[in-house]
Amino acid sequence: MVNKNFTKERYQAYTHLMQKIADLKYSAAVLQWDQETYMPAGSAEGRARQLATLTEMAHSIFVAENTEHLLEDLLSDEELGEKEKLNVSLSLYDYRKEKKLSAQFVRQLSEATSRGFQSWVNAKKQNEFSIFESDLDTIVTLKKSQASLMGYQRHPYDALLNDYERGCTTLFLDSVFSKISEPLQQLIRGVAEKPQVDDSVLKQHFPKDAQYNFGMELLTSLGFDFNKGRQDISEHPFTTSFGPSDVRVTTRVHENDFNSMTWSCIHELGHALYEQGLPDSEYGLPLGEYTSLSIHESQSRLWENNVGRSHGFWKQYYPVLQKQFPDQFANTNVTSFYSAINKVEPSLIRTEADELTYHFHVIIRYNLEKELIEGTIQTKDIPQYWREAYEKYLGVKVPDDQMGCLQDVHWSHGSFGYFPTYSLGSLYAAQFYAAAEAALPGLNESVESGHTQNLLDWLRRNIHSKGREFTSDELCTKITGKSLDPSYFMKYATAKYGGIYGI
Amino acid sequence: MVNKNFTKERYQAYTHLMQKIADLKYSAAVLQWDQETYMPAGSAEGRARQLATLTEMAHSIFVAENTEHLLEDLLSDEELGEKEKLNVSLSLYDYRKEKKLSAQFVRQLSEATSRGFQSWVNAKKQNEFSIFESDLDTIVTLKKSQASLMGYQRHPYDALLNDYERGCTTLFLDSVFSKISEPLQQLIRGVAEKPQVDDSVLKQHFPKDAQYNFGMELLTSLGFDFNKGRQDISEHPFTTSFGPSDVRVTTRVHENDFNSMTWSCIHELGHALYEQGLPDSEYGLPLGEYTSLSIHESQSRLWENNVGRSHGFWKQYYPVLQKQFPDQFANTNVTSFYSAINKVEPSLIRTEADELTYHFHVIIRYNLEKELIEGTIQTKDIPQYWREAYEKYLGVKVPDDQMGCLQDVHWSHGSFGYFPTYSLGSLYAAQFYAAAEAALPGLNESVESGHTQNLLDWLRRNIHSKGREFTSDELCTKITGKSLDPSYFMKYATAKYGGIYGI
Repeated sequence: MVNKNFTKERYQAYTHLMQKIADLKYSAAVLQWDQETYMPAGSAEGRARQLATLTEMAHSIFVAENTEHLLEDLLSDEELGEKEKLNVSLSLYDYRKEKKLSAQFVRQLSEATSRGFQSWVNAKKQNEFSIFESDLDTIVTLKKSQASLMGYQRHPYDALLNDYERGCTTLFLDSVFSKISEPLQQLIRGVAEKPQVDDSVLKQHFPKDAQYNFGMELLTSLGFDFNKGRQDISEHPFTTSFGPSDVRVTTRVHENDFNSMTWSCIHELGHALYEQGLPDSEYGLPLGEYTSLSIHESQSRLWENNVGRSHGFWKQYYPVLQKQFPDQFANTNVTSFYSAINKVEPSLIRTEADELTYHFHVIIRYNLEKELIEGTIQTKDIPQYWREAYEKYLGVKVPDDQMGCLQDVHWSHGSFGYFPTYSLGSLYAAQFYAAAEAALPGLNESVESGHTQNLLDWLRRNIHSKGREFTSDELCTKITGKSLDPSYFMKYATAKYGGIYGI
Repeated sequence: MVNKNFTKERYQAYTHLMQKIADLKYSAAVLQWDQETYMPAGSAEGRARQLATLTEMAHSIFVAENTEHLLEDLLSDEELGEKEKLNVSLSLYDYRKEKKLSAQFVRQLSEATSRGFQSWVNAKKQNEFSIFESDLDTIVTLKKSQASLMGYQRHPYDALLNDYERGCTTLFLDSVFSKISEPLQQLIRGVAEKPQVDDSVLKQHFPKDAQYNFGMELLTSLGFDFNKGRQDISEHPFTTSFGPSDVRVTTRVHENDFNSMTWSCIHELGHALYEQGLPDSEYGLPLGEYTSLSIHESQSRLWENNVGRSHGFWKQYYPVLQKQFPDQFANTNVTSFYSAINKVEPSLIRTEADELTYHFHVIIRYNLEKELIEGTIQTKDIPQYWREAYEKYLGVKVPDDQMGCLQDVHWSHGSFGYFPTYSLGSLYAAQFYAAAEAALPGLNESVESGHTQNLLDWLRRNIHSKGREFTSDELCTKITGKSLDPSYFMKYATAKYGGIYGI
């Protein structure tokens, strides 16, 4: 009895510590959200130092000497329950990983990325890589240091990959990409030989407010909880969370392209539903956190592609859309619309790429990052490397850096090793969706009639509510009976695009 | 030489500590700003705990054992410069004040006020004091504890007054209020005997966006730096600062009352100009902070009343306004408009009160708070007390709590002892404005031609840039040659309202 009370108290001390750290991290997330949505330009420097302090403090409190004792004592405590043990052991894993970085390093990285974000925004606006180059180079240098501080077996990039996706390596990714590259290229070539889809209907003028409102309607009807979240506008769409009761998405609107807002909106919705579905009762603890970025991406890609770009989905929403934009859609029907939103065409912008060519955008970034981290190429070489890679993999000419290596926000955040999770996410999404179809008879009919709640419930039950209980691989095996298998995606893609293009 | 280096290092350690605390406090301010502008309702609880953690940490770091040693060692260090010594001695004053509160108390108060803010919003919306009562009672109890923890000579309320205004006591305030009460009542009676001003022109319909845009125009032309700040909408207008490079104001718009947006906008502008004018180089240190709330209020009231409600000011802006709202101002001229915006009439809402009756709104709250803190009345008695006091001092009937004791946000923030600074601010404003008129020949002609930059420069030079170098009283004496003297305000008010009402 005494023992149990002691265990309980110790576990409470652990919970209290982790929640305090979570409070600091989520506070930093509020400052970052503000930075990308509303912050006036002139306060970038002050914000950078405030963010650095929050980040450094969260780190310092976590890696304090007594944290390790507390975690180890708890783990060797036989009175500790299973769930509690899992939380503690995941925290110990995180502790050992984070312990490798000094407070000074964490602060430096935070300051460098705040500065980097501002110069990326300017560089992109002014279409001038050199504005970003020096800050980016500092970030790259810091990420190289991080790789060697974290340690790795084969390749320094593995250390960074592992940071987003436990156990992920270049070996694993090379194998995954080798399995999809050739069949995807073959499929894309097959598409190219057929008559091309006309998507000009999507390139008409769609007023900003009307698009935004349509996005809000989509978010609402697909289950986003606006009592515990909101949507705003930002340069680069993203999802952020300040805990499951405050999850925020952002979008952007191009008035002459229906795609931009729509797919970013549904994509971020998928991320947000995951965050809103994490167990609130485990606030601050590993079981209250998402398991990995590839699983996070599986949620965004599943809603964006497997649901949002399906024919069935638009059976319900196309009439809504037509009502919103009667002139623009006067001469189109749902089937041509479905073809238009799935037009396959090698292009320049990742976030606007179709599902097939998308993976080559990721492969290019993956290879580039690998070489950058191993030092085969330098920061200054990026624009040239980018142009050559896009020519080689996608056969497109990059006109400038805005449409090239400046398009993505990630590097300014220090996110090296993040992009591969986008492809993994698509592959998991296809495998999960197949499992959902098997588990939920009539799923596609539900989607056709606008009822996606049962799909969301299934994701909540099998993925969201689990937090970090399982790794990506364990979760995939538990849900689908096997490890990641890219053939699900290829089967889905072949059937879908074969249908659209008559292959 | 060695000594000097040692002093420098120690001062740097002090600066570093204070800036870290500032980072935490300003981060909390970002979270609070978000709470009052954009935060979804369902995340109130999570936000409360995050704010409590930031507040508690800032407190704990500051009151740590070694802070006192560091400050005392620095103060006894003969190598320390004058300016540095002033910073350190002010920090020591703050330290001794804050040391009296435990981390637990600070956390409790932070959580109670976050909860209180949410229930105040609901109570006001639903016009139901009971929704707020229990949270308010918790806050009152905590403020009573705070008073006894802080200590006081005569009256527990003195301890709370002192928190906003160093040295302020009930004795001082009773004396100030006794000096203005009678002459103000006499002036108000004089006004009542004259033909009343017709302000119906201000109660027409002014569309929300157009009003907001006019407010933005005012902010811009009066010197608000939008590169280092922004304006948003909130339930209760306020100014907040995340450092001099990010100062934010909020406003509210009533479509059927031109007053609400306009005066809150210019009032908050005054606060914001002060914050934007604090020395950035002293970030986190006392010399980088405002000196007191009464001086802060002197800035908001000076711009709102001495400038914004002057005849000269509208010589420039009335034509702009007419262009914006041609229908509404078709049959009015600048002189009738000037009378309308200065209509004297006992009323219910403090923030919309004229300059004369305004002080009775403050006196009522001052007396109420005093009695609440000394325990003569209970939280549950507030609505009844409020109705009686408004009847007695202003002769108006309070129809409900929304228009009565629920109108102000302050108590939900735990701000007891804050209201008196509003009156002090008006009195200081009149005294400062008289000094500015003497120092800047042609000031009123400048204002008439829309040039307020020289006034702003004078305020920057004499007040904003000084930070906490002087107390309210020292600053007033330095600028005007004497301590606070309410006769400046009475002289200003008598001339102005005598003119308008023909007394």
